[in-house]
Amino acid sequence: MSKSTNIYMDYASSVEANPSSIHEFGVEAKKKLEKTRLEVANILGARPEEIIFTSGGTESNNLAIQGVVLAWRGKTLPHIITTNIEHPSVLETYKMLQKRKLAQISIVPVEPNGIVDPRKIKKEIKKNTAFVSVMYANNEIGTIQSIREIAKEIRHYKKENKKNNIFFHTDAVQAVNYLDLNVERLGVDLLSISGSKIEGAGKIGALYKRTSVAFSPIWGGGDQEMGFRPGTENLPGILKFAQALKITQKIKEKEVKRLTGLRNYFLKKLISLQNENQKFSRVLGRGSARPLQNFDFNFVNGDLENRLPNNINITFPKIPSDLLVIELSAHGIMASAKSACKSGDGKVSHVIKAIHPETKDTDGSLRFSLGRKTTRSDISHTIKALSEILIKLKKWYN
Amino acid sequence: MSKSTNIYMDYASSVEANPSSIHEFGVEAKKKLEKTRLEVANILGARPEEIIFTSGGTESNNLAIQGVVLAWRGKTLPHIITTNIEHPSVLETYKMLQKRKLAQISIVPVEPNGIVDPRKIKKEIKKNTAFVSVMYANNEIGTIQSIREIAKEIRHYKKENKKNNIFFHTDAVQAVNYLDLNVERLGVDLLSISGSKIEGAGKIGALYKRTSVAFSPIWGGGDQEMGFRPGTENLPGILKFAQALKITQKIKEKEVKRLTGLRNYFLKKLISLQNENQKFSRVLGRGSARPLQNFDFNFVNGDLENRLPNNINITFPKIPSDLLVIELSAHGIMASAKSACKSGDGKVSHVIKAIHPETKDTDGSLRFSLGRKTTRSDISHTIKALSEILIKLKKWYN
Repeated sequence: MSKSTNIYMDYASSVEANPSSIHEFGVEAKKKLEKTRLEVANILGARPEEIIFTSGGTESNNLAIQGVVLAWRGKTLPHIITTNIEHPSVLETYKMLQKRKLAQISIVPVEPNGIVDPRKIKKEIKKNTAFVSVMYANNEIGTIQSIREIAKEIRHYKKENKKNNIFFHTDAVQAVNYLDLNVERLGVDLLSISGSKIEGAGKIGALYKRTSVAFSPIWGGGDQEMGFRPGTENLPGILKFAQALKITQKIKEKEVKRLTGLRNYFLKKLISLQNENQKFSRVLGRGSARPLQNFDFNFVNGDLENRLPNNINITFPKIPSDLLVIELSAHGIMASAKSACKSGDGKVSHVIKAIHPETKDTDGSLRFSLGRKTTRSDISHTIKALSEILIKLKKWYN
Repeated sequence: MSKSTNIYMDYASSVEANPSSIHEFGVEAKKKLEKTRLEVANILGARPEEIIFTSGGTESNNLAIQGVVLAWRGKTLPHIITTNIEHPSVLETYKMLQKRKLAQISIVPVEPNGIVDPRKIKKEIKKNTAFVSVMYANNEIGTIQSIREIAKEIRHYKKENKKNNIFFHTDAVQAVNYLDLNVERLGVDLLSISGSKIEGAGKIGALYKRTSVAFSPIWGGGDQEMGFRPGTENLPGILKFAQALKITQKIKEKEVKRLTGLRNYFLKKLISLQNENQKFSRVLGRGSARPLQNFDFNFVNGDLENRLPNNINITFPKIPSDLLVIELSAHGIMASAKSACKSGDGKVSHVIKAIHPETKDTDGSLRFSLGRKTTRSDISHTIKALSEILIKLKKWYN
């Protein structure tokens, strides 16, 4: 890089330059951007021109959905199939499109274990079905959907009915750390990812969009991102995101194994706590009739086999979630009641309601996410804190 | 802040926490976010709930325009008035809305000095006019629009016609460093800003939206940003942006004075170069018939009085812009031909074409932006480089 005079620039290096500029710094920035796009594409098994960088997961999901709807040229409205446990950035977008009379939506309920039956998705496909969107792993209960099976059902329908324009999208924001992201193996046409769940990745998102997907941008502006997402590219953010994403791929196998072990340890400790501590047991046992497959434990929400290794979600009947979150926070434990986007309104999460319709607003559910820094002693500390809190809160169940 | 166990978090401090979470780190993040929102509101003379943080200028402009159009409840399509020198994130959005049959657009041409006549804006107002958008300062030629006068004309129309729902928007992305941003004094209902032209501000934008503006979000999702812009807030980015914005306000007066002096020095040097150097003079003189008010110089694009202090835009007839940019870049000078969003396509910029319709694709125009680090010696270096380049490129005009 040649030394630059300071006269005509507000930035100090090519990382801060505008990659669409054609001067030297702009060209260098563009090179870095395209190299990074290739790296992200390689992780997804995609082509670089199929990677659109965005500002985060909400934008990636909106771009995927609205991008397909706006490009729809059918005579009737486009029909969309989804599930009842999607992220708000998906479900609320459908509500918005319905209200604006831009799309018809069919919502397939998941089974009590938090997983949708792929055959039920296929059953909903109609002549005007344009889009199917099923999240890869759930943000609250961590259940993993059978994305490959759903893709197969859609392929079968397409073949049987000689229909090509059904595009299959998955929101993989929660899956990036732990699951296979190869779009060919998954069989998806669009896939959303973001930095929000990756350590050190920052506020950046990306959308994989297969070249063959009929697609429109949702913003007007410049020609950046293959014309699908105008606005000067956030190159420093994109570089950081790609770097963090690469690390997740390297440590994935080891982390999945380690976290699965930690999570099972957490559950084992909870059970013994339940057995040993009568007060605690009374709480946990109360009104809970939620048998789960594969696991003899009646208050964990969502399937325990097909589940992110770092997720635990537990219902505490008759104790408000927000109170539990605040009490845990005082012990230095940052748990969550439901999607942060919708937290604090005192209502049962739509995800918990979907798998356990009998849940009341007064029943609390808690989500614990284990991370890269979590150790066994952190878990012991949490079990101890939970025990103390439940004893303290006994007035709620007495 | 209490010491936290690492068990249930992927972030290391409240700055990285999700401000919508209700645990301690979330609450601290929320406090920081709202404090920052108040700081930005204070700079604009607005209320904190009128500040919506976005990912950048393109999003702010799209949100402003589409947000008003989507909330329109009139029986006919909403009518929008704008000018022919707006940023692509404005003009392309109108094209998109027209194509989707969501709005009618009237484009008022600016005068040859690059400034729109406020009375011509008023003349275009119709019964179904919902939105007027005029950029505060132009990104290519730096001309400053009479925002207060336009606001006054709109107020007069509203009063005379007892019509209230015309919302006035200005794209102030280029104005943040140098001009008054007080929304009350300006008389605007919506105002876009971003970090792109602020040293050290990063990729963040904001939209001021007066409480009374009928408005819809353009994405579906969570309840962040008063429900108008879902998605986890980019708190580290927002903090950095607000900090940089505060600095611009502190040094504004001094910088405007300093840069105006430097710019005049640049122009003086250019004139003497023109007078002294016959070869150079031949280039500059060729086919140029562009008198500008207030300045005896025939090839500077745009008014020289009502102009950003850091902007110089010059047309070099018969020399391709991109060639000039690349030659200057080799001298360490990062100039631009036109909006970076649309650079590299070999066409005359729509802004230059708007003020000088006779300009051909083979005529080059160059934009020099002076910054906080620019010195007199940088300018001497640039004049010297320009002289050498024009001599080298004589084959283009012989």
